[in-house]
Amino acid sequence: MSRGNFADRMLAASAARGGPVCVGLDPRWEDLPERFRSARGEDLAGRAAAVLDFTRAVLDVVAPLVPVVKPNIAFYEAMGAPGYACWLETVAAARERGLLVVGDVKRGDLGNTAESYARAHFDVAGCDAVTLSPYLGLDSLEPFLSRCRKDGRGVFVLVKTSNPGSADLQDLEVGNLRVFEEVAVLVRAWAGGEGLVGESGWSSMGAVTGATHPAEVALLRRMLPAVPFLVPGYGAQGGTAADCVSAFDGEGRGAVVNSSRGIVLAWRKGPLAEKHGEARWERAVEEATLEMRAALAAVLPRGK
Amino acid sequence: MSRGNFADRMLAASAARGGPVCVGLDPRWEDLPERFRSARGEDLAGRAAAVLDFTRAVLDVVAPLVPVVKPNIAFYEAMGAPGYACWLETVAAARERGLLVVGDVKRGDLGNTAESYARAHFDVAGCDAVTLSPYLGLDSLEPFLSRCRKDGRGVFVLVKTSNPGSADLQDLEVGNLRVFEEVAVLVRAWAGGEGLVGESGWSSMGAVTGATHPAEVALLRRMLPAVPFLVPGYGAQGGTAADCVSAFDGEGRGAVVNSSRGIVLAWRKGPLAEKHGEARWERAVEEATLEMRAALAAVLPRGK
Repeated sequence: MSRGNFADRMLAASAARGGPVCVGLDPRWEDLPERFRSARGEDLAGRAAAVLDFTRAVLDVVAPLVPVVKPNIAFYEAMGAPGYACWLETVAAARERGLLVVGDVKRGDLGNTAESYARAHFDVAGCDAVTLSPYLGLDSLEPFLSRCRKDGRGVFVLVKTSNPGSADLQDLEVGNLRVFEEVAVLVRAWAGGEGLVGESGWSSMGAVTGATHPAEVALLRRMLPAVPFLVPGYGAQGGTAADCVSAFDGEGRGAVVNSSRGIVLAWRKGPLAEKHGEARWERAVEEATLEMRAALAAVLPRGK
Repeated sequence: MSRGNFADRMLAASAARGGPVCVGLDPRWEDLPERFRSARGEDLAGRAAAVLDFTRAVLDVVAPLVPVVKPNIAFYEAMGAPGYACWLETVAAARERGLLVVGDVKRGDLGNTAESYARAHFDVAGCDAVTLSPYLGLDSLEPFLSRCRKDGRGVFVLVKTSNPGSADLQDLEVGNLRVFEEVAVLVRAWAGGEGLVGESGWSSMGAVTGATHPAEVALLRRMLPAVPFLVPGYGAQGGTAADCVSAFDGEGRGAVVNSSRGIVLAWRKGPLAEKHGEARWERAVEEATLEMRAALAAVLPRGK
């Protein structure tokens, strides 16, 4: 079953669904609206059930407004076996609503182990794309790439992450380049490989580059003109729409910008929380999504 | 509840249980003895149940003979939600048998996400130690390190992995050092941090360095005299006991050497398979474990 190249699908979905916004799902039971928590038990099974109830309601709000969601599996693993089942249900619920799902799993392991991870997150969970760590090299990515070629999946390789600690290793200077720039050189070569580039000219191998480092985003866009970017760090982590502009090409294509807490928890903190509060959390989530769409549209070049 | 420093526990367990052997658990349903497969269904729940049956039987054989086991979570995730439950049961089964459990999870993510992974694999699963990727820097390790300080847990940071692709990024030259050597410099600084060094003088922050690169193992031992090593790549991947000697100090301490297929699947391939076959798989697993213990004992210096 071929779905078409992942980058082609991501670009088409962004154009059709209001712009390049990705909603991050980092669910913590403690952060749910009280009505969702009290409807279920407080053990791991109850917590996972409450998270799934809330996530489905969030997806109902955002699915008509955005092309992509990015659940982070760490928050599900923290709820044990029920949490892992909730992870699988979350991916399925998002796909049922027509969303592309980037599984934020940041995996990286060798040979047959990477094959097991690819099976877990593409074949069993059904993610459209996943995030991967580059530390183990190309053979750790290959089982995922074979599914990019055959089955329309995508990957986003960590290049420059949004956290302060990203400087520790990623910013070390390797001769004239820093480590993350060397990773970008590798990604450029890998992403042009046979079977990965779509009709749009973009590769199904993408890169993660944080909005909290706008100069590095701009540099990486110049280095990687045909590699889609997943840009975390918008909103709660401090990245602005202006910080993200350089992730896109001259027609405003080639990237999706992620916001997690800034959208899903908009009813807990900030002006939308004051306006709507927990009682009308759906309205706060919807308005936060529309505000982010508008903020990006205001700064991005229009497509031809 | 303090268990004592992880490195102290690992050294004591190696001395008490026949040497520094770690048995890797990379279970694939296809590889199980027929009698385990046929006793359960072929759906994911049946496969996970068969894997757990076999793993418990393997643990019964190896628990008296080795100090440490290392289940790799990728193989469990590939079996979906039942597989994840099997992961948790496997960690519990190993701990019930007195084994130290290194959860081979290779996680690495930022801030509150890393906190969720630490919760998942230390607090919920109950691993004694986990493997972690260094790509995101110290803040991605900190939630794990806080549990090393307070709760006797350990981490092994990927430095030089055993796969051929490890050369892609890890071997790039950064001025006078290669990337993995720069990571070693960081690990040396981090591993000496407050609360991490045990009474033995070894740190609860360890490093992963593959037996398939013996020159690099020796180099890293010189660079990291107080950092315990987890050495994969023995046996099926080609590493020999002689390749592992330099992972240890002058008293034969400070490392554990992992073998996965070479022990758990000894009845499928090689001389022990010819001798015992599937019918007596337990004997093949036991003999393979004892052979590896003897091979290491023959080349390691004796403790004072």
